[in-house]
Amino acid sequence: MDKVRVIIAGPRGRMGKEAVKLVFHEEKFELVSVLDHKHDQKMLHEIDDFQLYENIPVYSNVEECLQKSNADVFVDLTTPEVGYLHTKTALQYGIRPVVGTTGFTQEQLIELKQLAEEKNIGCIIAPNFAIGAVLMMKFSQLAAKYFKDVEIIEMHHDQKLDAPSGTAVKTAEMISLSREKKQQGHPNESESITGARGANFDGMHIHSVRLPGLIAHQQVLFGADGQSLTIRHDSYNRSSFMSGVKLSIETVLAINTLVYGLENIID
Amino acid sequence: MDKVRVIIAGPRGRMGKEAVKLVFHEEKFELVSVLDHKHDQKMLHEIDDFQLYENIPVYSNVEECLQKSNADVFVDLTTPEVGYLHTKTALQYGIRPVVGTTGFTQEQLIELKQLAEEKNIGCIIAPNFAIGAVLMMKFSQLAAKYFKDVEIIEMHHDQKLDAPSGTAVKTAEMISLSREKKQQGHPNESESITGARGANFDGMHIHSVRLPGLIAHQQVLFGADGQSLTIRHDSYNRSSFMSGVKLSIETVLAINTLVYGLENIID
Amino acid sequence: MDKVRVIIAGPRGRMGKEAVKLVFHEEKFELVSVLDHKHDQKMLHEIDDFQLYENIPVYSNVEECLQKSNADVFVDLTTPEVGYLHTKTALQYGIRPVVGTTGFTQEQLIELKQLAEEKNIGCIIAPNFAIGAVLMMKFSQLAAKYFKDVEIIEMHHDQKLDAPSGTAVKTAEMISLSREKKQQGHPNESESITGARGANFDGMHIHSVRLPGLIAHQQVLFGADGQSLTIRHDSYNRSSFMSGVKLSIETVLAINTLVYGLENIID
Amino acid sequence: MDKVRVIIAGPRGRMGKEAVKLVFHEEKFELVSVLDHKHDQKMLHEIDDFQLYENIPVYSNVEECLQKSNADVFVDLTTPEVGYLHTKTALQYGIRPVVGTTGFTQEQLIELKQLAEEKNIGCIIAPNFAIGAVLMMKFSQLAAKYFKDVEIIEMHHDQKLDAPSGTAVKTAEMISLSREKKQQGHPNESESITGARGANFDGMHIHSVRLPGLIAHQQVLFGADGQSLTIRHDSYNRSSFMSGVKLSIETVLAINTLVYGLENIID
Repeated sequence: MDKVRVIIAGPRGRMGKEAVKLVFHEEKFELVSVLDHKHDQKMLHEIDDFQLYENIPVYSNVEECLQKSNADVFVDLTTPEVGYLHTKTALQYGIRPVVGTTGFTQEQLIELKQLAEEKNIGCIIAPNFAIGAVLMMKFSQLAAKYFKDVEIIEMHHDQKLDAPSGTAVKTAEMISLSREKKQQGHPNESESITGARGANFDGMHIHSVRLPGLIAHQQVLFGADGQSLTIRHDSYNRSSFMSGVKLSIETVLAINTLVYGLENIID
Repeated sequence: MDKVRVIIAGPRGRMGKEAVKLVFHEEKFELVSVLDHKHDQKMLHEIDDFQLYENIPVYSNVEECLQKSNADVFVDLTTPEVGYLHTKTALQYGIRPVVGTTGFTQEQLIELKQLAEEKNIGCIIAPNFAIGAVLMMKFSQLAAKYFKDVEIIEMHHDQKLDAPSGTAVKTAEMISLSREKKQQGHPNESESITGARGANFDGMHIHSVRLPGLIAHQQVLFGADGQSLTIRHDSYNRSSFMSGVKLSIETVLAINTLVYGLENIID
Repeated sequence: MDKVRVIIAGPRGRMGKEAVKLVFHEEKFELVSVLDHKHDQKMLHEIDDFQLYENIPVYSNVEECLQKSNADVFVDLTTPEVGYLHTKTALQYGIRPVVGTTGFTQEQLIELKQLAEEKNIGCIIAPNFAIGAVLMMKFSQLAAKYFKDVEIIEMHHDQKLDAPSGTAVKTAEMISLSREKKQQGHPNESESITGARGANFDGMHIHSVRLPGLIAHQQVLFGADGQSLTIRHDSYNRSSFMSGVKLSIETVLAINTLVYGLENIID
Repeated sequence: MDKVRVIIAGPRGRMGKEAVKLVFHEEKFELVSVLDHKHDQKMLHEIDDFQLYENIPVYSNVEECLQKSNADVFVDLTTPEVGYLHTKTALQYGIRPVVGTTGFTQEQLIELKQLAEEKNIGCIIAPNFAIGAVLMMKFSQLAAKYFKDVEIIEMHHDQKLDAPSGTAVKTAEMISLSREKKQQGHPNESESITGARGANFDGMHIHSVRLPGLIAHQQVLFGADGQSLTIRHDSYNRSSFMSGVKLSIETVLAINTLVYGLENIID
């Protein structure tokens, strides 16, 4: 079988670096070029941190990159601003995009979906490539059909500013779609110290732990008479996203529409 | 809406007692009679431990019980020997069985399925009514499509004689159906004390913890680059089975075939 | 060695029942009588739930009970009101008390301590007999000398009215005695949903989870650069108190003063 | 207060790098020089990976280093071969050693202890600087006095070759010193798949989980009637050792003998 020919846009970002490593070393893939607005006409190994990657041309113009690379898949790990333009251009050239940026508007998504279907090719846009986290959310949504009592505990390093985490809120939203509405806890419960019972999201409680040493962890706890079911995801480092990038590259070749969210290619 | 009229066979067993309590108190259900081979022509409240349940007749003969009870659902929590006969008889009378016994042969299941479809009614046979445990197995099977590295830790009280537990083996079997085959651990790993790496089931490792105080707990751990996903079920007491019995009573009214295993009515 | 002769006051309460079972069956102990204000001149096996305990006289008067029983240890599992009187009387008779009630005043404790030392006998008063919970608190206090970042997650059934639990607050108080004062979390952290960061106790955060099925669980999480240390206690049922009662009966024979709190006989 | 003047031997190793970072940035400490057999007469910032550390001389000869540095503490993170010589020399010069190497013989330890006491200065030799791991072991040893039933689950990445881990065996050894001897599990228990019950160490069971993504984790589970107590340590990266190095530097200034093992300076 021929290798899948892949372009990576945004190689110097944290996810970009991991993606270069993944695609370069994965046997089924071939890294054919990178798109980097800061560098042009160089070879990748001339850029800091990429000395080991030989024979990979760098382009700064997306059209030139697409024209010269003869790629199958265009992986975009840039920013929402240029990500939209890159994705649209790739689709126009008939190259299947795998996009890891957030912030697309509803209108942009609809437009890109129409374009993908017109061109009869796949396009995957995923705000979270960590398959484990996506499975945790998916399983939580399913479990909530049978267990209407659920609390979420998310735990992160103490440099995190916001609470609850985005993943915790996303999980709660997904659970809300499937669980019978319920205000949890005893109707007469009271807090002797304010905040003990956590944040209340649609009747569910979310607790945010912040400690040095921790990275990114979340558990979703379901309770019912005589039992509990816990779904937990631990993310130790950025490489956790790469299994999702790999799955997306493989999947985008087999579909001919736009799919938003990794949860929709996992079944 | 009319209440669902329910017979319970085997009321004095551990699950039977919980089922009597459930059906008697659940608003949508009505306990119309019980089948108990040791007692006949009594009322349930005359039997030890059941003083609170008034106006429930007890039968010792399954046909008489079915004829006189005008029931919708027949819940069987007896033994494999009589369970098969009860189930067949209930189907013949057009009463939908919900059966919590194990040990049916393949032939018996096929025969009962044909009978259910002939009568155009539902029948649910479930060796495990703990929805949480069934979800744990189902989620594990699904996760194994994306994470081929998995280990199982099951933990029970130290009066348990067999290791690994039946649920752990069942979980491993279900995972085997979906995961890419792999012998886990480092190819050159070695044990300085025999048994450290646990039981090897199809390349997966299973660990059995036995401690006083524990009840019945299992966690399934998936690992991949930079992340882990854990699915855990804790069973604290027998009442954990009742959510599955309730779901089965509701579901058996809506189907017209035999379904084996709670995992097949959960989606 | 002679068996330790034990009186139990308050046999019908939840802890009392467990204590009767423990003392009756433990080889090193002998249950010589029970004190029960509701029954007198009966034998224990005549009281409901105690049919199996033969040859144990019941008294309703504490002095008569002490005079006739020739006991070594007097275990009191009654209420604060009578508990104080019982303890004082036992000490006056030279019988060593093991007391599981809370609510003694500081004055009462001082008076009882003087009396114990006067009589040169031991007396143990312990608001919590669960050794595991006491160890969790003790270890947390010790760990806090080295890890000043700590959060507490306590988890109980959803019939519990108060949050945080008494054990969580007690744990936080004990930690406060040993840790370098710190307001945890990022100075600029903010909650997008109120309560996410839990209750703030002296700079530590406490989170209270309430779910059906759960019993009584607590974990204390310490974090530092690159590591975390977690101490967790799970209480599944009332029998968890019995190891502490047993230890107290053994220890009270070896001391000749009053000790308050199981943590002070554990080292 | 004057800053503590510190020499670091072995700056290029994994622990060495972290130690340089710690001592350089910690307000109470001053990095006065490093000892590195591969470099001499350089400044530290001339060595790869250390560009940021200005004004730190590098020596390759231990005596010259000690003579010129006027240090309070000598931190050795080299190898057992040179570690012994470095430690001895530092003691002879009256500089207090903090040593993180393993493999000293009993004779060497006795000799170094005598030398430290002769010179009336402190010396700390610690095979494991992760305070959290040391506390886990210490707490386990203490808990085992009250709970004789215990199992250990250690979890590491799947590149680890040996099972059980050294820390698990060390923990089991420490527990053995305090627990009442017991062969755990049911006397008639049997394994339907060999290895399920794990490694048997003095009647305790140890289970070794190996999964990609995991780093270094261990939990020690104690069980008793109605309760369990779990002590867990998670090590996420090498920086976890630094809190122990810091504590050792502070403590070595206050003692005047040799202490072996961090557990003996923690109380």
